[in-house]
Amino acid sequence: MTRKNGFQHYKFEVPEIIFGRGLLRQVGSCARRLGATKVFLVSDQGLFEAGWVDLVMKSLQEYGLSFVYFDQITSNPKDYEIESGFREYVASGADVIVGLGGGSVMDAAKGIAILSANGGRIRDYRGSDKIHRPIPPLVLCPTTCGTGSDVSQFAVINDTEQLCKFTIMSRCIAPDISLTDPETLLTLPERHVCSTAIDALAHAVEAYFSVAASSLTDVNALQALRLLADNYARAVREHRIEDLEALSRASLHAGMAFSNALLGIGHALAHPIGGLYNANHGDVNAVLLPEVVKFDYPVVTEKIAGLLNALGCELKGNEEFAEEMAVEVIENLLDAGNSPRGLRTLGVREEDLNNLAKLALQDVCVLTSPRQTDEEDLLGIMKRSF
Amino acid sequence: MTRKNGFQHYKFEVPEIIFGRGLLRQVGSCARRLGATKVFLVSDQGLFEAGWVDLVMKSLQEYGLSFVYFDQITSNPKDYEIESGFREYVASGADVIVGLGGGSVMDAAKGIAILSANGGRIRDYRGSDKIHRPIPPLVLCPTTCGTGSDVSQFAVINDTEQLCKFTIMSRCIAPDISLTDPETLLTLPERHVCSTAIDALAHAVEAYFSVAASSLTDVNALQALRLLADNYARAVREHRIEDLEALSRASLHAGMAFSNALLGIGHALAHPIGGLYNANHGDVNAVLLPEVVKFDYPVVTEKIAGLLNALGCELKGNEEFAEEMAVEVIENLLDAGNSPRGLRTLGVREEDLNNLAKLALQDVCVLTSPRQTDEEDLLGIMKRSF
Repeated sequence: MTRKNGFQHYKFEVPEIIFGRGLLRQVGSCARRLGATKVFLVSDQGLFEAGWVDLVMKSLQEYGLSFVYFDQITSNPKDYEIESGFREYVASGADVIVGLGGGSVMDAAKGIAILSANGGRIRDYRGSDKIHRPIPPLVLCPTTCGTGSDVSQFAVINDTEQLCKFTIMSRCIAPDISLTDPETLLTLPERHVCSTAIDALAHAVEAYFSVAASSLTDVNALQALRLLADNYARAVREHRIEDLEALSRASLHAGMAFSNALLGIGHALAHPIGGLYNANHGDVNAVLLPEVVKFDYPVVTEKIAGLLNALGCELKGNEEFAEEMAVEVIENLLDAGNSPRGLRTLGVREEDLNNLAKLALQDVCVLTSPRQTDEEDLLGIMKRSF
Repeated sequence: MTRKNGFQHYKFEVPEIIFGRGLLRQVGSCARRLGATKVFLVSDQGLFEAGWVDLVMKSLQEYGLSFVYFDQITSNPKDYEIESGFREYVASGADVIVGLGGGSVMDAAKGIAILSANGGRIRDYRGSDKIHRPIPPLVLCPTTCGTGSDVSQFAVINDTEQLCKFTIMSRCIAPDISLTDPETLLTLPERHVCSTAIDALAHAVEAYFSVAASSLTDVNALQALRLLADNYARAVREHRIEDLEALSRASLHAGMAFSNALLGIGHALAHPIGGLYNANHGDVNAVLLPEVVKFDYPVVTEKIAGLLNALGCELKGNEEFAEEMAVEVIENLLDAGNSPRGLRTLGVREEDLNNLAKLALQDVCVLTSPRQTDEEDLLGIMKRSF
């Protein structure tokens, strides 16, 4: 059942990364450097109300750039929202796209960029390497601590006909610049701090276990785990900028890991579940992660000591308890932010499980699972997480 | 004397990285992807004799690319060699540059690329951010295990009028693709395996101590140290591909760290010394490193436990011996490859030390030293390393 690691050759690719408090004031400079004359700015209502959109608009103006603002994006971004954004983009005459937001806004910005250069419907680009023409210059500014979309080669879009999220994977859709200003976390509601940080946790664990993992991705996955173990509980409790900044860094490291090592069955399951029930992505990952770790455990035993060490535990000769320790330390993290337990609490219906397993098996994330997986396995994981 | 860390904002930028045994056969595909019709291939006689140049030429042909071959480069590459390479490049009508070799070949390829796009003499670009026009697409394939030039934003060139190496630093000169085939180390003479691996050791230590270090560079610096501690001695003794590959990875991690965190006074001193005596760069670093660590120690005490841990030592309450332990474990690594001891053995003359200290103080690497440094300090380090 172990999968032979066929990835003795590996690649590692990340965009230019800029990180620091107050850096949203530099978005204009970044867009300018990419050749912008007019910027298409994608964000959302919450960030507008918190004042971050205004900060970015001022920065664009300061650098002599005009802009068009687009915020018609909802969470788990829908195909028709992307397509409407694309029409706005074309009408605007903009030449650089800036996305300011969480995973939904950033994936929408990527989707708009794909259509701008390649035409058609967004679902035409489902899967791996379907994008043949380079997209417009793209600056992504994450305002949550989990998605990793700002460094990744992925976009996840909701197909509203099939009621399923699908993944677009292409080196062409990594942005030119990833700019993180951790101060944006100060206005992020606590439940989103928690759900996105747990998404980063799932990214780090699945990337670390992936058959495509390498030395270059492992150091980033483990650093993400270390930062979460050291800072997550305190960040949730005290909401201080120092701790929140550490979560931003964890998200960045986890993003660099999973964009290059890819993910596993946790995310393969989270995509159809998120699509069918419009469920919060981080919450779905939180519910599934313990069972995913148990399922993968037999084929990743050699890596467990590294995972436990990063999470602040030492095996000290207790190898026979490694699985329990790994699950326990992860569950403790989930509890520190009151993550939901049980797919049922997210609205998942038992009668949908068979179909969800079928859809998950087609997800691109299955390909890098460390353990061979079939529909029965996926069904079992959902039932045990129900 | 401690320097306040002024780098709360940080950037991280690395080229696309491709790594794996046998991958030199993919150079043609990489050049093609960058739009090549004709390639300017820079390498050296040793690699030609070992058959690696032939492998790359065949790969270029396989992808329908013609090429011009240029190998008039010596170690510590000279300004006039770069300028002659530039004239050959112009005459060739090539549109992509491929560098296959150690630091000298790769830095020469960067120098040729700079002149191709910007004109003038190579010394015009000395210092930081003097390059204003983008260089031709560049693929760099390291064949040693230390330089890091394949991922870095630096080129170090020998000014033959001033008899001093100077550094060119610019985001524009990082290559498009860094392609490492660790099999090339199988034909690298043992003394070069040692001197370049020790260069990687110095990169990792100086980048880890740098005031510009961040979470993103530290994970790479520490991973380089871990890989060197675990594999260097055995690689030197047994010369097996598994161990040599680990040294290649160490070099890559150290390169990612120092290209973004920059370096310190070890490299600031190594540049004028290398320039004046045409001395081997790794050997100069080997000689200086213990005294550099002692000099920096008082201002980096907080980071020493991390360094020791990566090098396989635990402090276990012996904090008062941390400095001795750090120096000892580094000296043990130096001895495992019979690195030279003493600047005198490299041909350095006592009467030149004052002038070398003056030149080193102007080197760009001084700027990120964790400890304020003056001419007297630099003189003291050289005297204690004499």
